[in-house]
Amino acid sequence: MSQLATCVILAPMQIPENLEELSTESLHASLTAASMESMNLLNNIAGAYPDAISFAAGRPYEGFFDTDQLHTYLEVFTGHLRDERGLTRQQVSRTLLQYGDTKGVIADLIARNLAVDEGIVADPASVVVTVGFQEALFLVLRALRAEDRDALLAPSPTYVGLTGAALLTDLPVLPVPCAEHGLDLTELVRVLRAAREAGRRVRACYVTPDFANPIGVSMPLADRHRLLDIAAAEGLLLLEDNPYGLFHRTPDRRPPTLKSLDTDRRVVYLGSFAKSGVAGARVGFAVADQRVGEGLLADELSKIKSMLTVNTSPIAQAVIGGKLIANGFSLVAANAREAAVYQRNLTQVLEGLDRRFRACPEVTWNEPDGGFFVVVTVPFTVDDAFLEYAAGEHGVLFTPMHHFFGAGTESRQLRLAVSTLTPERIEEGLDRLAAAVTSRLPGPATAPVTTGAVS
Amino acid sequence: MSQLATCVILAPMQIPENLEELSTESLHASLTAASMESMNLLNNIAGAYPDAISFAAGRPYEGFFDTDQLHTYLEVFTGHLRDERGLTRQQVSRTLLQYGDTKGVIADLIARNLAVDEGIVADPASVVVTVGFQEALFLVLRALRAEDRDALLAPSPTYVGLTGAALLTDLPVLPVPCAEHGLDLTELVRVLRAAREAGRRVRACYVTPDFANPIGVSMPLADRHRLLDIAAAEGLLLLEDNPYGLFHRTPDRRPPTLKSLDTDRRVVYLGSFAKSGVAGARVGFAVADQRVGEGLLADELSKIKSMLTVNTSPIAQAVIGGKLIANGFSLVAANAREAAVYQRNLTQVLEGLDRRFRACPEVTWNEPDGGFFVVVTVPFTVDDAFLEYAAGEHGVLFTPMHHFFGAGTESRQLRLAVSTLTPERIEEGLDRLAAAVTSRLPGPATAPVTTGAVS
Repeated sequence: MSQLATCVILAPMQIPENLEELSTESLHASLTAASMESMNLLNNIAGAYPDAISFAAGRPYEGFFDTDQLHTYLEVFTGHLRDERGLTRQQVSRTLLQYGDTKGVIADLIARNLAVDEGIVADPASVVVTVGFQEALFLVLRALRAEDRDALLAPSPTYVGLTGAALLTDLPVLPVPCAEHGLDLTELVRVLRAAREAGRRVRACYVTPDFANPIGVSMPLADRHRLLDIAAAEGLLLLEDNPYGLFHRTPDRRPPTLKSLDTDRRVVYLGSFAKSGVAGARVGFAVADQRVGEGLLADELSKIKSMLTVNTSPIAQAVIGGKLIANGFSLVAANAREAAVYQRNLTQVLEGLDRRFRACPEVTWNEPDGGFFVVVTVPFTVDDAFLEYAAGEHGVLFTPMHHFFGAGTESRQLRLAVSTLTPERIEEGLDRLAAAVTSRLPGPATAPVTTGAVS
Repeated sequence: MSQLATCVILAPMQIPENLEELSTESLHASLTAASMESMNLLNNIAGAYPDAISFAAGRPYEGFFDTDQLHTYLEVFTGHLRDERGLTRQQVSRTLLQYGDTKGVIADLIARNLAVDEGIVADPASVVVTVGFQEALFLVLRALRAEDRDALLAPSPTYVGLTGAALLTDLPVLPVPCAEHGLDLTELVRVLRAAREAGRRVRACYVTPDFANPIGVSMPLADRHRLLDIAAAEGLLLLEDNPYGLFHRTPDRRPPTLKSLDTDRRVVYLGSFAKSGVAGARVGFAVADQRVGEGLLADELSKIKSMLTVNTSPIAQAVIGGKLIANGFSLVAANAREAAVYQRNLTQVLEGLDRRFRACPEVTWNEPDGGFFVVVTVPFTVDDAFLEYAAGEHGVLFTPMHHFFGAGTESRQLRLAVSTLTPERIEEGLDRLAAAVTSRLPGPATAPVTTGAVS
């Protein structure tokens, strides 16, 4: 043993922490937050009942998955680099295989997609390509959260990934209640002003205008204009999340995104290709055209990204870039088959709920115009014990809505995700759900029809 | 205009922040940190002199890059899923194209690689696959940084990505001076104890035992054992970073990693495939087998990752997995050609420095046994003005060492990266460097030989 080590042992010293028992309590508070426990609990229940029919996960439909597409998209993108950008073979290899630009290599292709599908005019310099929507969200929250008095507004209920990213940056989230079609805008102003009165610096408001997770429904056009007016009058930055907007049951009636209506750089647009591109590429982006000093907020996000993930895999970007090019920059066009599945499933779930519960006025549900989610309201508390009962006794999974409200809340609602199931599984799943719900209803008079036969 | 917006304008209110001038000062402190300015300045100088010969970037050699490898690696990995793991075609597609497990899909392959190349026995359950080394580092720092009194130890000079990730988590870095071959271990104990005396909770010590960036040299075996003894005696967690360890000039004399010597779970091993796998895949990993409650630190890192990037692209993981499988899990074998280039370049730079400066005893350099970097010491301050002069007047780029020490420091050293250049460019670059250095030396008597002719 070295002289130093001997000295270390003999010297009077603080008792060292025992690494063999590194305690949860000694780690960052995000790891013991209620929402983190929620996710674990939901995953554990889902894992314990692998044969249950799952209305739980809002994942893209897998029926058209084909790994050959990866090779095609890579070829299309390398062809684009060679033919459109004039790169040599060596430069093409370097673009895909070497460290790359922190802001990404497909910002221009994303800008073309936003112009084609969303009517958003985005300077490619304002685009940062990220490791999915989630990293884009983290970058913005990390940039904005500078002082202990900082806070973020978000709808309640809200996406768990928003809660998680805010936890990682120690940024308190102030809940804004939802009305029938999303953020209650009168409440928004009230919460914002109360926070400022209390000394909070409100950094932004997170919002998903289209088919929000978990509520499923969209904000009407008038509300979108009103939200932008509020943002202008109050000096409020908006963080727009839009993973489901493409999947409208009447595609030509899609309402405009906030960003396409934003003449004032009040909206940071946070994009995802997980539902419309390739989930396994883990590519998303931020459009952050707000001015910061001589540059753009996008440049500040890029600095943070350089310390977090350095750059988004250019191979993953090539997959998305190739898909964009191969479809004339339209993900509406690229997702025609998938959108038809989501529309069919949504219609089937809504009609199936009606058939099973039309005799039970105490069971209701909303009717989104698209997206992945439907919220069902029942006349009893939907807690995790009820989920476990439904999974174990009836073989059906869903998500109790209380998980989207935060710790200690109760809710009589549950979220159904309709995106991944086949028609047969939906019918069987709704039968099982109806049986589980019926078992908790008072008296046999209100028992719903539980046959899955399609009329 | 809606009634609400009118009300907003008329009501007495706090003056809203003007988003059109979102100020740098209002954003997170990391964005105005000195090390962030360093990176920008270095990038700007490099960008301003695109024709300069660059000893600046420690990137992998590009001479063997071939995008066809991507297709091969993807095929090998999908074949592995089908033949070794017995997945159906649909399950293979789902593995690559859908959302995936947060801890990753190649943990077992990484464990096999660590066994073959590093003698590290890693339970795949202790492995978290990440978006490069950088995300692995962030996850660990985010997990460990829970209170304002927390601090991290790191060598001085150190890798700028360590400084950056610590800034993102508001974790102060306490510098431990380097001796000739890396961390000065007597200083380490002194700094650690002084920090604890001052009320700091020291969460870990970051260390790169092999060919550290920027100092280039490696810790002797005796120091590795002594460092582990100190960690045990002091209850100190070690974060081992090892991007360059494979590239030893005498491969069969590679010293063991700390993790392979760690019998006590005191080392979190942070791995990178950027130099040895495919940089463009952006895949790295953490081996975190420390116990936390009923689970492992790896599980806690996975929870944080679920809020940060959800999962590492399985397509990118497939590229690395395919390369591992295709090379019998040995990245030593996979990098035989690249390692030969690095060895050749290192030898050429060391011999070239000797030929040019042997008559100038005031110019010295260290002599690493491998890796990407050599540090040159000159008898004057190497500031950014000297770099700009060398780039503009002599057409050569390098990295002033003061950037690795933090703000306000001076240094008479510069770092040369040897990994990306051809022999011709190295000779020409050393001539240019010699001319730039010579111009600052006192008197003509010590003028070095500036011919690039190889003897």
